[in-house]
Amino acid sequence: MYEQINSGISRYVTFTDEEFEIFDSLLEFKSVSKKTILLHEGEMCNFEAFVVKGCLRKYYIDANGFEVILQFAIENAWISDISFSIYEDKPSQVFIETLEECELLVFSPETKETLFLKAPRFERAFRILMQRNLSVTQNRLFNTIAKTATEKYQEFLEHYPTIPQRVAQHYIASYLGISAEFLSKIRKKIAHQ
Amino acid sequence: MYEQINSGISRYVTFTDEEFEIFDSLLEFKSVSKKTILLHEGEMCNFEAFVVKGCLRKYYIDANGFEVILQFAIENAWISDISFSIYEDKPSQVFIETLEECELLVFSPETKETLFLKAPRFERAFRILMQRNLSVTQNRLFNTIAKTATEKYQEFLEHYPTIPQRVAQHYIASYLGISAEFLSKIRKKIAHQ
Repeated sequence: MYEQINSGISRYVTFTDEEFEIFDSLLEFKSVSKKTILLHEGEMCNFEAFVVKGCLRKYYIDANGFEVILQFAIENAWISDISFSIYEDKPSQVFIETLEECELLVFSPETKETLFLKAPRFERAFRILMQRNLSVTQNRLFNTIAKTATEKYQEFLEHYPTIPQRVAQHYIASYLGISAEFLSKIRKKIAHQ
Repeated sequence: MYEQINSGISRYVTFTDEEFEIFDSLLEFKSVSKKTILLHEGEMCNFEAFVVKGCLRKYYIDANGFEVILQFAIENAWISDISFSIYEDKPSQVFIETLEECELLVFSPETKETLFLKAPRFERAFRILMQRNLSVTQNRLFNTIAKTATEKYQEFLEHYPTIPQRVAQHYIASYLGISAEFLSKIRKKIAHQ
């Protein structure tokens, strides 16, 4: 179980066994059943979770009552609501929910600080992880503004090739910001190319 | 000149005079005239710039030839194209241009690595800076998908109260993803409230 997260984090920095021991000992393991809401709008988000197994979504409910998905997280991804709570001290505007049965390894802001105190080189790994996250989010922003729905769906398939087999189509439509009907048309068009 | 950047970076970590000396000695000062393009689409972005004075924009040109502004950077902000080049080793998809005469303090990826080697506690400051950046970008993504044009403009005014006096209106419209005519209508509506 720890192998997965350790190999993920050591893509950026080479750690000693001792450092990994500290890292692993501070993580909390959580097994969560399908369709569990881990964070509700209005709550403070006090976790960052690494996905060992399963699939989650981060979403909000817009002014018209529609769900809009901001992120899918599958194996080896991190999910949290960094944007509105952990670093801003504001209640969250979003929900985080499991779409499958999930196994997670979780940090609280406090255990993460303990990690940085006990093994300061993790600062570097998390700085680089944060940069990659920023890069992905900027790319998502760029695509949201700049690309057509078909282009967005094709890029989605490149990044998340397994998700269409794992979640209901309407979730993907909600991620792309289009209707389920329109997504269905795009899929047919691509299939006939 | 260094006071501004030093006080900016020490919002997150308290540094010694010695650490600040290393930091400041690695920064390169650049005075850049108005309307200079610092990064072209297709180039590799090899800088991160702190704005001492002035205003810049980061934008791309969409499939129809329209400019879409992703970010304005004014005093005390950082600007770079982290998304598509520095950390991804891909040529940039965006432009970075000065809108006013600018004074900048600049890091290259190499000098930043030298900084982390010589004064490792800057890893922490840049990790937190990166988190704040991520938070702002996620918020921008959230707003782009979730908010009406009027709400977006009002939030823009809260975050950048001085920009409407500093840049042409069509730049703000391009940031909000609306036409200049529509922005003009929103401004009239707000003025009459």
